[in-house]
Amino acid sequence: MAIRIPVSSYPHNIINTNIRSRSSSCSSDVKSSASSIRSKAITSSLKQQRKLKEKNFDLDLLPHLSPLQLTEEIASSFDLDVVVHELERLFNQPGAYPPHPYLPGPSSPSTSPGFSGHPVRVAYQGVRGSYCQEAAVKAFSPVCNAFPCIHMEDAFQALEDRTADRAIVPAENSIDGTIDRNFDLLLRHDNVEIAGELILPVNHCLLAVPGACRSDLKRIVSHPQALSHCKTKLELMALDVDEVPNAAEAARFVSENGISDTAVIGSVIAAKEFGLQAIEQNFQDQIGNFNRFLQLGLRPVLPGRRDKSPSGTWKTTVAFSLEKGVSDLFRALWHFESRNIAVTRVEHRPNQLNPVRAVKKETGTIRYFEYIFILDLEGKVSDPGLKEALIQLDEISGFCRVLGSYSCT
Amino acid sequence: MAIRIPVSSYPHNIINTNIRSRSSSCSSDVKSSASSIRSKAITSSLKQQRKLKEKNFDLDLLPHLSPLQLTEEIASSFDLDVVVHELERLFNQPGAYPPHPYLPGPSSPSTSPGFSGHPVRVAYQGVRGSYCQEAAVKAFSPVCNAFPCIHMEDAFQALEDRTADRAIVPAENSIDGTIDRNFDLLLRHDNVEIAGELILPVNHCLLAVPGACRSDLKRIVSHPQALSHCKTKLELMALDVDEVPNAAEAARFVSENGISDTAVIGSVIAAKEFGLQAIEQNFQDQIGNFNRFLQLGLRPVLPGRRDKSPSGTWKTTVAFSLEKGVSDLFRALWHFESRNIAVTRVEHRPNQLNPVRAVKKETGTIRYFEYIFILDLEGKVSDPGLKEALIQLDEISGFCRVLGSYSCT
Repeated sequence: MAIRIPVSSYPHNIINTNIRSRSSSCSSDVKSSASSIRSKAITSSLKQQRKLKEKNFDLDLLPHLSPLQLTEEIASSFDLDVVVHELERLFNQPGAYPPHPYLPGPSSPSTSPGFSGHPVRVAYQGVRGSYCQEAAVKAFSPVCNAFPCIHMEDAFQALEDRTADRAIVPAENSIDGTIDRNFDLLLRHDNVEIAGELILPVNHCLLAVPGACRSDLKRIVSHPQALSHCKTKLELMALDVDEVPNAAEAARFVSENGISDTAVIGSVIAAKEFGLQAIEQNFQDQIGNFNRFLQLGLRPVLPGRRDKSPSGTWKTTVAFSLEKGVSDLFRALWHFESRNIAVTRVEHRPNQLNPVRAVKKETGTIRYFEYIFILDLEGKVSDPGLKEALIQLDEISGFCRVLGSYSCT
Repeated sequence: MAIRIPVSSYPHNIINTNIRSRSSSCSSDVKSSASSIRSKAITSSLKQQRKLKEKNFDLDLLPHLSPLQLTEEIASSFDLDVVVHELERLFNQPGAYPPHPYLPGPSSPSTSPGFSGHPVRVAYQGVRGSYCQEAAVKAFSPVCNAFPCIHMEDAFQALEDRTADRAIVPAENSIDGTIDRNFDLLLRHDNVEIAGELILPVNHCLLAVPGACRSDLKRIVSHPQALSHCKTKLELMALDVDEVPNAAEAARFVSENGISDTAVIGSVIAAKEFGLQAIEQNFQDQIGNFNRFLQLGLRPVLPGRRDKSPSGTWKTTVAFSLEKGVSDLFRALWHFESRNIAVTRVEHRPNQLNPVRAVKKETGTIRYFEYIFILDLEGKVSDPGLKEALIQLDEISGFCRVLGSYSCT
């Protein structure tokens, strides 16, 4: 067994490294990554901008008009879709309107089941019947109003525009790895913070219409990921196996059309949502198949009464870039190691503001990719040791932001 | 600027950690991850196994028959598709037939343009006209025979069954991040080794049929990733933008059907392959947009004359798990830091053989996900310092394997 070396045996000069050279580009805003683009939205937005331009409409004036004036002003000159688009844009603009009354300020802590008397409104990334819905319901039941967001961005947006108090997004599967996109979005949304973590065992169920027997089945369908988790059992069953892009949607289809020869591998909640029976639970091959979800909230995260109690283990997630690149990760980790703060996860995403560093060497130009590192640390951000370590980390970082400090059980 | 602290100032006791407690599950075989499954193949394979079973055919006997006997034997009893499937299976089985004569043994180093007189056969992951084809041609031109493999697995398989001398697979984009799947495959294929690295600037071209002008264009199509890389320029053009699952396929379609109002964002090689013109090159918004490709070979990697000369910088890639989990990554990095060996990349993939560790604490059971870490190190595996560091790394690892040591310019 490896032994943890006590702090005192590391040299003092590492603990006290206090070398600062921050670039002026110390921005916390990291651009959106690839899959975010939705062409329809772009097309529509571009068309509308052209229309406004053609009509010589002063775009800068719009925010200064009242909603009613605005509606009348635009409606008098443009098509209905332009009106709707502009109203949506203004409504979603931060600060355009006073905060919604249901989100209490820091001086009025919530004592309601959720936030200010209404059930917790939880946006989850996915569709009805997905594992993410299951996580949302498990985290906030019995009093919660969970609603789906098909695109990951939409779950973040629901927090930003305050139509949700919390968002649940998938972060990782223990067998398949990280859902990178949500970390990019977290880096991009300064106002959104990690409010908690949920690690839930995957329970792949064999779902069929009520009354269907195993012997009726000719085909099993699911998402490729779920099928691969059940590979051995599927081989034993020796039925046709088909991939579908969305298991929950397939469950709904099977139910609505009463297809009795087809089973879907899906969640318990899909069975409940679509009136299917679970012929078999825990159909996956491997134990140790877990999903990790992040619970997100708008900064500063306000505790709802249904949130996990602060008596559990605390975790802090910090994102940072390194002035000297990856080779300085050792130094970054040292700040935690030297204070006996356990690092439980080391993630990285491209540093989209500054993706590549080129260095001339005698053998030619070497290119190094630049990353934002994301560390999970055990402890509360207010713990003196962790606080100190984060200050020192900041000194070797071009960018450094605490993404959340939360209790998890 | 941060200062690199010299080795001598770190305490000796860290350098000499020599604590060994290896689990018996020190297997280098890591299971295939989710997206690998292809249901059609499973279905077909299961059906064939059933057919063979129903006919009481002795499956174990098959490999002992000559190819001719085998064909006759199976064909006499089964459908044609079973014959084809079984022949394919046997042909692909390692060791079923003597190695192909064109792959020289270690005692007969190649002096030909590629391997033993034939052009280098390069399998690339993707379709004709993809960036991966561009990388394959750039790495091995003018004498290479590059062929596409739609599925990532197929590029690995082409090496294993020796239908390819090299495979080129995408590893990372500087803006979008890692192609995780190829690292899982690399961990799973013990026989496959990294033979080189190619970092190429992305050159997104605006491709249209010959003679088409910008003013003819009404629509631009590409893969979501390429579209997001060109977001700002697309907004300026104010045309319809549509996502397609494959840009190279779209380029072929536009060309074959002479669609003059649609441009495709794609590679230079797509223009060449499908007879399109590049209306604009480097259409992407951001400088610093690079793709990193891995060049793979069958272990031991035999140098072809077209491979990069060994005068460039050397890199070694090592994969390992940590007995004590992520919190020991600091210790792992120390072995390199203490020898002034630069770590240029720190990747992780799920440890699929042992994905989760549950630890009982006073606050309840805490679950930690377990990872295989993959480090890129500057240096040759035969350098005495790196060799020593790898031995020490192995001592704190449940699994440790050098994935390749290669020159890169």
